[in-house]
Amino acid sequence: MAVGLKPPVRLLPVPGARLASVSAGIYRKTRPDLSLIALAPGSTGAALFTTNAFCAAPVRVARAHLAAAAPRYCLINAGNANAGTGAAGIEAAAATCSALAALGECDAAQVLPFSTGVIGEHLPVDAIRAALPGLHGALREDGWMDCARAIMTTDTQPKGASRRFEIDGRSATITGIAKGAGMIHPDLATLLVFIATDAVVDAGALRDLLTVAARHSFNRISVDGDTSTNDAVVLLATGQAGNALIRDPGERRAAGLASALGEVCGELAQAVVRDGEGATKFITIVVEGGAEEGECVAAARAIATSPLVKTAFFASDPNWGRLLAAVGRAGIRDLDVSGIDLWLDDVRVVERGERARTYTEQDGARVMSRGEITIRIRLGRGTASSTVWTCDLSHDYVKINAEYRS
Amino acid sequence: MAVGLKPPVRLLPVPGARLASVSAGIYRKTRPDLSLIALAPGSTGAALFTTNAFCAAPVRVARAHLAAAAPRYCLINAGNANAGTGAAGIEAAAATCSALAALGECDAAQVLPFSTGVIGEHLPVDAIRAALPGLHGALREDGWMDCARAIMTTDTQPKGASRRFEIDGRSATITGIAKGAGMIHPDLATLLVFIATDAVVDAGALRDLLTVAARHSFNRISVDGDTSTNDAVVLLATGQAGNALIRDPGERRAAGLASALGEVCGELAQAVVRDGEGATKFITIVVEGGAEEGECVAAARAIATSPLVKTAFFASDPNWGRLLAAVGRAGIRDLDVSGIDLWLDDVRVVERGERARTYTEQDGARVMSRGEITIRIRLGRGTASSTVWTCDLSHDYVKINAEYRS
Repeated sequence: MAVGLKPPVRLLPVPGARLASVSAGIYRKTRPDLSLIALAPGSTGAALFTTNAFCAAPVRVARAHLAAAAPRYCLINAGNANAGTGAAGIEAAAATCSALAALGECDAAQVLPFSTGVIGEHLPVDAIRAALPGLHGALREDGWMDCARAIMTTDTQPKGASRRFEIDGRSATITGIAKGAGMIHPDLATLLVFIATDAVVDAGALRDLLTVAARHSFNRISVDGDTSTNDAVVLLATGQAGNALIRDPGERRAAGLASALGEVCGELAQAVVRDGEGATKFITIVVEGGAEEGECVAAARAIATSPLVKTAFFASDPNWGRLLAAVGRAGIRDLDVSGIDLWLDDVRVVERGERARTYTEQDGARVMSRGEITIRIRLGRGTASSTVWTCDLSHDYVKINAEYRS
Repeated sequence: MAVGLKPPVRLLPVPGARLASVSAGIYRKTRPDLSLIALAPGSTGAALFTTNAFCAAPVRVARAHLAAAAPRYCLINAGNANAGTGAAGIEAAAATCSALAALGECDAAQVLPFSTGVIGEHLPVDAIRAALPGLHGALREDGWMDCARAIMTTDTQPKGASRRFEIDGRSATITGIAKGAGMIHPDLATLLVFIATDAVVDAGALRDLLTVAARHSFNRISVDGDTSTNDAVVLLATGQAGNALIRDPGERRAAGLASALGEVCGELAQAVVRDGEGATKFITIVVEGGAEEGECVAAARAIATSPLVKTAFFASDPNWGRLLAAVGRAGIRDLDVSGIDLWLDDVRVVERGERARTYTEQDGARVMSRGEITIRIRLGRGTASSTVWTCDLSHDYVKINAEYRS
């Protein structure tokens, strides 16, 4: 029941990146559940990982491998998170990397493992090992869409985005795929994102570019530091575009890449929200007029994580009291509630902290019946602003999470 | 669908406190919705109010009145929160206090107003004024149970508790009532609690006693500082018991009162959880072995506020991975997950951060099928501990909050 989300029409191949997906019998149903992204020699990579203390074994291994070597492969399975599996889990993740390294003739540290699925079950290493030759043999540049499907768990739609951009007068490409759909507390979704570009970028610049792009996309559907055991966002650069090496993300030559990366991240992050478990509404929360950005983010997140707000949206109830109550508990210092204005789409609902004189329930109900709604709040304290995306909380959210073992 | 919660068998009258409830036409259905607690001259009072910046008009007025004078009346309405009503809301709350003061021959500041219900609607002051003479005329010492019913909103059961205790060799009484049932994020519940004793206690000591008792009861079903617009917990002392004045809550003579107050608060707080909206399970979360209490509370609250954990409990799914993931994102510094043990009732599920060797799904499922479950987590970092109470997240939670305008 994704809101305004369709499978991507076309994901552009990225020269130097090849992908494949096969069924290895990891997922509870027989379907492609093991994916591989192979990168040309000389590629660089950067990643953001979950900050959850209870992070999964593949997160520990991938982090260590990325610190030690330039990546050649990302090996991704759905159906098993390899989390809560102790030392055996670490060994299992490392064993799959070693097996692939033998096949791909690279160092095991050049393989980054990723897992999503049930916590606490041991990774079926033998099944994965057995599937690797077929997987490796199936690699191709137009494997993005298959891979987007193979990494899904409770997602109802594959998620991907592509852009072309200019760099040093050459045309380059950036393509990304994402999985993630647990959205009431977005921080609990297992979010896996793989983005590749053929631009020539060093690892430090990749990391800086990714950090900035994530701050305005994946971190705006999520509470900082509140992440699942397996979250990872990976940016890879195959270096095939022939531009001069980008070392400084701030330099002008990198502007096209930064912009395209920002668009791909924004599209993927919003796709995750649109596919939120049980979602029937896509909600954009814009908080303006803050003294600084942090308080705008705090207010928007207080709304985005309030079950009372989210059930009201599911019910198409213009319950602006719950919206203001959420802003009121966001911890904004010395907040003067009599300075707050609030709109639902084009309808002014609250004026100076109380119901706007022009507001009618009919106007509110008209907006709330829509599938996509923007809540705009003006704090009246300054010029900072922030945008956060969320979805409603429906009967189906409970159904999905009561029935799915994640 | 309250879990193990029945109406209190008997609420003991408190000498010096009289109560009444009438139907004033405020609630959407015709039922008693306006209540009055009258206190003997010389009574003292203390209260804890919401810290929500967007606090309701009655909270502002009650806070100011309590600071200015000793209370004689608490005037409580259900069906209208008088929140988001601006200056007119303040005037409305003050007007009801003035009307009652004229009737009760006291100062308006000796009347404390409380409201719970829909946000953003103007308080029907005329209807309340018209109902006051009848309300005042109906005051009686055994009105506690009627009052417990009249302050309910989405509550399915009235909530009350009584204890007798000794003070200076005399017998004294403490009785409290509570309303509140919005429990997925307990901080969003509108919690109203009124407790009275006939002990002789000064206002400062009352406040200290209440603060300590609330810390281990109402604040253990709620996230600090994350409160609704109308939350209030009130402790009143009528001074009829004839003991020597208690000025210092730490003195030995006050031990019986402190203990009885703690029991009443604990019972009321747990009753609120048991009556959580849509609750089918009552869950006690005990976190032990912390370096300090704060990290135990943080871990317990991370579990208590996780929709993924709560839907798993609704489904009777022993999904211990979600429990560990919640602990992992609780922000505990340098948490070594390999030191964590976890039990569901008597079943050891996690040993040193991974599935216990003795654990079977059958054992987990057997515990999860129960209506009352204790999650016990040992952090292995020290000797501090904390207990938090919560309930599961069911289909009915969504139904109730999608349909009720709060």
